[in-house]
Amino acid sequence: MPDIALEDTGEKPVTPTGREGGGIELPSSADLAARIDTMLRILASISDTAPEEGVTRLAFTPTERAAHDVVAGWFDEIGLTVRQDVAGNTIAEDAGTDSLQAIGTGSHLDSVPRGGRFDGIAGVVASVAVAQMLKEQGISHTHPFRFVVFAGEEGARFGQPCIGSKAVAGLWQPEHLDEVTDAEGVSLAEAMRLVGLEPGRIAEASWRDKDWGAFVELHVEQGAVLETQGSLLGIVDLISGSTRFEIDVAGRASHSGSTPMSLRADALSAAAEITLVAEELANDSRHRGTRCTVGKLTVFPGSITTIPGRAVVHLDVRDVDSARQRQTANQIVRRAELIAERRGVTLEVRLRSDTSPVVLPTWIRQVITEACQEHTDRWRVMSSGASHDTQLVNTVIPSGLLFVPSRGGLSHVPEEWSSAADIARGSEVLLNALLKLDAHPHLT
Amino acid sequence: MPDIALEDTGEKPVTPTGREGGGIELPSSADLAARIDTMLRILASISDTAPEEGVTRLAFTPTERAAHDVVAGWFDEIGLTVRQDVAGNTIAEDAGTDSLQAIGTGSHLDSVPRGGRFDGIAGVVASVAVAQMLKEQGISHTHPFRFVVFAGEEGARFGQPCIGSKAVAGLWQPEHLDEVTDAEGVSLAEAMRLVGLEPGRIAEASWRDKDWGAFVELHVEQGAVLETQGSLLGIVDLISGSTRFEIDVAGRASHSGSTPMSLRADALSAAAEITLVAEELANDSRHRGTRCTVGKLTVFPGSITTIPGRAVVHLDVRDVDSARQRQTANQIVRRAELIAERRGVTLEVRLRSDTSPVVLPTWIRQVITEACQEHTDRWRVMSSGASHDTQLVNTVIPSGLLFVPSRGGLSHVPEEWSSAADIARGSEVLLNALLKLDAHPHLT
Repeated sequence: MPDIALEDTGEKPVTPTGREGGGIELPSSADLAARIDTMLRILASISDTAPEEGVTRLAFTPTERAAHDVVAGWFDEIGLTVRQDVAGNTIAEDAGTDSLQAIGTGSHLDSVPRGGRFDGIAGVVASVAVAQMLKEQGISHTHPFRFVVFAGEEGARFGQPCIGSKAVAGLWQPEHLDEVTDAEGVSLAEAMRLVGLEPGRIAEASWRDKDWGAFVELHVEQGAVLETQGSLLGIVDLISGSTRFEIDVAGRASHSGSTPMSLRADALSAAAEITLVAEELANDSRHRGTRCTVGKLTVFPGSITTIPGRAVVHLDVRDVDSARQRQTANQIVRRAELIAERRGVTLEVRLRSDTSPVVLPTWIRQVITEACQEHTDRWRVMSSGASHDTQLVNTVIPSGLLFVPSRGGLSHVPEEWSSAADIARGSEVLLNALLKLDAHPHLT
Repeated sequence: MPDIALEDTGEKPVTPTGREGGGIELPSSADLAARIDTMLRILASISDTAPEEGVTRLAFTPTERAAHDVVAGWFDEIGLTVRQDVAGNTIAEDAGTDSLQAIGTGSHLDSVPRGGRFDGIAGVVASVAVAQMLKEQGISHTHPFRFVVFAGEEGARFGQPCIGSKAVAGLWQPEHLDEVTDAEGVSLAEAMRLVGLEPGRIAEASWRDKDWGAFVELHVEQGAVLETQGSLLGIVDLISGSTRFEIDVAGRASHSGSTPMSLRADALSAAAEITLVAEELANDSRHRGTRCTVGKLTVFPGSITTIPGRAVVHLDVRDVDSARQRQTANQIVRRAELIAERRGVTLEVRLRSDTSPVVLPTWIRQVITEACQEHTDRWRVMSSGASHDTQLVNTVIPSGLLFVPSRGGLSHVPEEWSSAADIARGSEVLLNALLKLDAHPHLT
């Protein structure tokens, strides 16, 4: 069927010289850590905020696209075939010696507002390093190796995480892209169109399992477990689920001076109690491991001399145990209802997203464990509190997740840090794991 | 000294036809309440928000100025001499038969964001009604009567209430006008210049006690005391003091998924506790009458998946007892320090403003009481929870404050309401009180 090759697949071959942000040379230092450090510095400079304010490279902005273009240029320089899919994911391929299912690795380049330089970026830089090592060392592999940069992993802009990897998992309905909006009211579909993508063709981004064999992501831990336990590498068994919802409290706005305490229906006081209840439930020993966070609380009208008439509490409840995750969210709502009744305010609860915990396949974990063990015995199995593209990819392809340490466990802040040496070690383990998968009986 | 008349006093005679917003005719209906209702409707239409969202007419905006211009036009139509001082206060004079100290009345026209149609406006409309009644009924008076529209009474824009009346009290240092800024970083001095005022000459706005004898303001109650007790008029004896401060909580921002509860330093949780402590202290029976309000709470970075690294709690503590007011503010800070220590966060406390309670002079209260009694026996003496221009004017001239009922006690919200009939009654009492002052032995 020769016509297939002529079909418009919505995918664009990447020609770095013609693209904004391309043409930044791949560092050629012999030392892997030094190369990684240079790549991290280059990517950190692509930000909508000044360096001291951290990295701001939100999903589906020209800034995120510029970072994709730089990395696409690097893969092109290494000699890989690079394309961008309709959802904005960048995919570089190093052909295998046989016509087999691909083995993939990769992560994301977008950030939260005023975030760090490593979250997602470490895994992208590691994948560039792996591609470079394969070429330089002339390592052959039977399966094609694919290096993926996912678009829009952080939920910060659209309240919806893992947008690009949800597309490869085939889980988007095109109409939902119109319904999801950012704080300025721009829909995800519109944001995608503004950077030249094709939201109406989102289904074409999905991966077929006959094309793909396995996937491994390297990511920074974003917690302090590896550091505090003296481990250098973490093999993830479980990824926490996350229930995100808003409790919208309606009280009665009035003057702060002339309204006696007894006649108030203060929406913020109720919201403050709800915030503390969420924390209390997470700290309850029966909820060991649950994390409840109020990351955002908006107060209306927000004037010093007006009793708040409305307050919106934005909650995130995470757990590796799905029943405990949903029970805790329900308990918060029930306790909030009691608070509302006592205070004479009313509540509206809106579920924003709800993802279940994910168990990653044992055989992939086993491959990563063997790869780690060949480099060091300072590794451990651990769960991930944060969401990752891997959990979406894992819905269609067996996937694994490898952690490198985060200094002080800091994440989503300008102070986020992982050493280039740790990422270099992770890259070598990642290369080893991909080669073990290349030879794995499950994939031959 | 004929040259004095040629000096630039910084004051501008008002010529309504040449000014934006002028030329709106004074309602001429024979019925006082109908006139008042028409004036209220005209002024409510001068707003930066749509009618259903309440009135937004912030201090020193073109919108506030437009409202001043409309009222200046009305005073001009009645036949009064109208001028605007360097601070933006509009002052209309009805000459007396003798050369004596002036007797004044008036209020303000600015609002909080999405506020009501009566706060301040009722007193301005009453003063127009009084001026109209004096002319129509040919009532003569020995003292000049002055009708004042103060600029910038609400603290909403600059965190600083009673800007115009503070100027007439001679309490501004010109350099402070550069230090006070709004949320956009515009200084008060700059805002004043942008609407054609002269902040550098603010001292010239101050009133000299040889020029002024007494002042009475009519204002809506902004509480529910008159309504719940079936009273039609309130004579204010005390105005609450207000201590306004910010507690800036610094914790540690981090990822909501990967940071265990035990390793958190959540600035918002601490802020929530502080919010509830302020409420608890106000509700404590030993603090009877204290009102504590957190009207504004800002959370940084404000992302659902990031533990807040910073939260700023904006507090307002009010009491008619100055010792109790300051003690309560100090207790909140001490309790906040204990919370901070326990939670491993740090605090910075910034005092924004601190005004003492004000006792209004007994003889003015007596005059207002007699004026009320001649109209109805449904009046009562009460304190004011809210601040008023009167308390600043009272620092230089003996002043009084007359309340009319607020429906449901609602204030600083679009639903704020006082009936035109109640304001008409208040206007008649106000006229009566001014005439009693005109004949009072203290002023002759």
